[in-house]
Amino acid sequence: MAEAKKLTGAGLRGQSAGSTALCTVGKTGSGLTYRGYDIHELAEKVSFEEVAHLLLKGELPTQAELDAYVGKLKTLRALPQALKEVLERIPADAHPMDVMRAGIAVLGTLETEQSFAEQGDQADRLLAILPSIICYWYRFSHDGVRIETALDDDSTGSHFLHMLRGEKPSALHAKVMNVSLILYAEHEFNASTFTARVCASTLSDIHSCVTGSIGSLRGPLHGGANEAAMDMIEQWQSADEAEREILAMLARKDKIMGFGHAIYSESDPRNGIIKQWSEKLAQDVGDTVLYPVSVRCEEVMWREKKLFCNADFFHASAYHFMGIPTKLFTPIFVCSRVTGWCAHVFEQRANNRIIRPSADYVGPDARPVPAITER
Amino acid sequence: MAEAKKLTGAGLRGQSAGSTALCTVGKTGSGLTYRGYDIHELAEKVSFEEVAHLLLKGELPTQAELDAYVGKLKTLRALPQALKEVLERIPADAHPMDVMRAGIAVLGTLETEQSFAEQGDQADRLLAILPSIICYWYRFSHDGVRIETALDDDSTGSHFLHMLRGEKPSALHAKVMNVSLILYAEHEFNASTFTARVCASTLSDIHSCVTGSIGSLRGPLHGGANEAAMDMIEQWQSADEAEREILAMLARKDKIMGFGHAIYSESDPRNGIIKQWSEKLAQDVGDTVLYPVSVRCEEVMWREKKLFCNADFFHASAYHFMGIPTKLFTPIFVCSRVTGWCAHVFEQRANNRIIRPSADYVGPDARPVPAITER
Repeated sequence: MAEAKKLTGAGLRGQSAGSTALCTVGKTGSGLTYRGYDIHELAEKVSFEEVAHLLLKGELPTQAELDAYVGKLKTLRALPQALKEVLERIPADAHPMDVMRAGIAVLGTLETEQSFAEQGDQADRLLAILPSIICYWYRFSHDGVRIETALDDDSTGSHFLHMLRGEKPSALHAKVMNVSLILYAEHEFNASTFTARVCASTLSDIHSCVTGSIGSLRGPLHGGANEAAMDMIEQWQSADEAEREILAMLARKDKIMGFGHAIYSESDPRNGIIKQWSEKLAQDVGDTVLYPVSVRCEEVMWREKKLFCNADFFHASAYHFMGIPTKLFTPIFVCSRVTGWCAHVFEQRANNRIIRPSADYVGPDARPVPAITER
Repeated sequence: MAEAKKLTGAGLRGQSAGSTALCTVGKTGSGLTYRGYDIHELAEKVSFEEVAHLLLKGELPTQAELDAYVGKLKTLRALPQALKEVLERIPADAHPMDVMRAGIAVLGTLETEQSFAEQGDQADRLLAILPSIICYWYRFSHDGVRIETALDDDSTGSHFLHMLRGEKPSALHAKVMNVSLILYAEHEFNASTFTARVCASTLSDIHSCVTGSIGSLRGPLHGGANEAAMDMIEQWQSADEAEREILAMLARKDKIMGFGHAIYSESDPRNGIIKQWSEKLAQDVGDTVLYPVSVRCEEVMWREKKLFCNADFFHASAYHFMGIPTKLFTPIFVCSRVTGWCAHVFEQRANNRIIRPSADYVGPDARPVPAITER
């Protein structure tokens, strides 16, 4: 949201709904850490699969553990035949987030989690198969081809781009996808993660938790911001036009997506990282419009409203420079955040009480039921 | 849960997460009201469709409104061909709640809510189609038949039993289904409803909200209690055996499902109502075992632990007497509670702030990322 409302008491803002060892958001001195590691250092030094291991298994892997983990994930990319047949029945104009939601909901009927002892393997399967689900549906419904999803790419990001485009990506694109997936992997009790924890608190299965999370991430106040930012910036042909239009939007009090944050008040630590990579991609493709437009938007929003870019804003141009269709931006977020969601499910299960808040009643006083002829 | 833990601070118990005009739970003088009407009076005097109208449209309907509403619901029972083909691909040993979750998740790809202006019609569609989804899958996967779901029964309960058994139900069975659906329709900020509100707070679509709710209701701490109660009581051949076994379970500190409640502390107002109908059904089928067993369980649990039956316990025997397979008990709960879920989605949308609580961090202190060779 462009405008941060200063409400209290609504939306549980600032109220603790449990404990976590996974993440800090907005603590002094470090904007974002995963299990104690700063997001800047993770984005610079490790792979997304190392981060997935960190979140899901508790620690960064050794080389042997990482090799085994990458090898395992590669074996989990194939789609069951029944799921392919389901995906082929979802129309091309469906919302891609609905496709992912339906894909995991159906997967859970085919590979049901029978006990919590399976949760680690189930989470790995979800991590490996989500890119297959979205790319299989996308290529079938848009291009009429049945793609092979059991490819041997070494990273989740490469696997995604390989399926989408039919060829292995460049080292630069693989690197940017890796960084992007790291940035989106985990963010404490955001709405989609909290959805997973509420569901997990009933001791439901992991597919139910992740299906619910996808549904929450779909909302335009949550995961849809990078797509909305893209829709906005691609309308403009120059930085000057962007400035004029942003000022006009502000004057009209339009919502401007990709700025501000429910928790961060001064900056989003993920922005500087993805912005840097967006600039490299702009140079790579010879862009002279979209990146300057994006930079001007950032300048104007800060100058006029003291609103900063969140993680989503420069993701829009970065993904676009890699040729990713805008409608697949939020699904990539799912392919990453599934690690955080599952890690939170594990935590909730390990120290559970059903999440059941109260409500303030604002309805009618007690009243008798009138006969139907008296209504 | 049989044993109510006296914790505070966990699970948001007693903390307000918003306001509602739909329901009061456990207020002095009345255990449960829907928009001010006491559950006892509703269960005695009105139909489930009137309650659905009350929750979804705001008031009990006039006769003309009720006739129009029932007529509308009848037109919304048919399954899209693509959804039938999906349901036919879900195996017979799938969890029925996963079938409902997948059914709504897929429906949302075919009939996506394009704007909140559609929410009333979308909710009616969900209410009308959920029994079709579960019965179509059940009869196809278990009996190998493709049933017609667009039947003309006047009530949701009759429609369900008609599809399940291939013939219109008796007046008694239709009445009991009606009462049961009323009792389960709404219960304030329980975990599945809260899931819907968290999802709705991102401004996501109604299929995402309801899909998430189904996933939460699936959990054994939430919707699964009537099935668990059935699994327990059907093992016993007499009231005396039931007493011995319950005492042994208590001695072993086993969990005993169908007793106690997160909010109610002395009794569940729904229990007396469904118990009465279970007794009538027992007389109707000439039962001399299951109903006496159930009554003895209630007596022993109160005598030994001061734990009372919740809504689920006598639902088990009631559904069983009507020939409903145990695995379909919780899906019936869904067919009812979808009214409360959707009404809460409307409320959340009408006065929304994204639900984003905080967490207590209990993880590692800030630390540098070690080189992979140093781990």
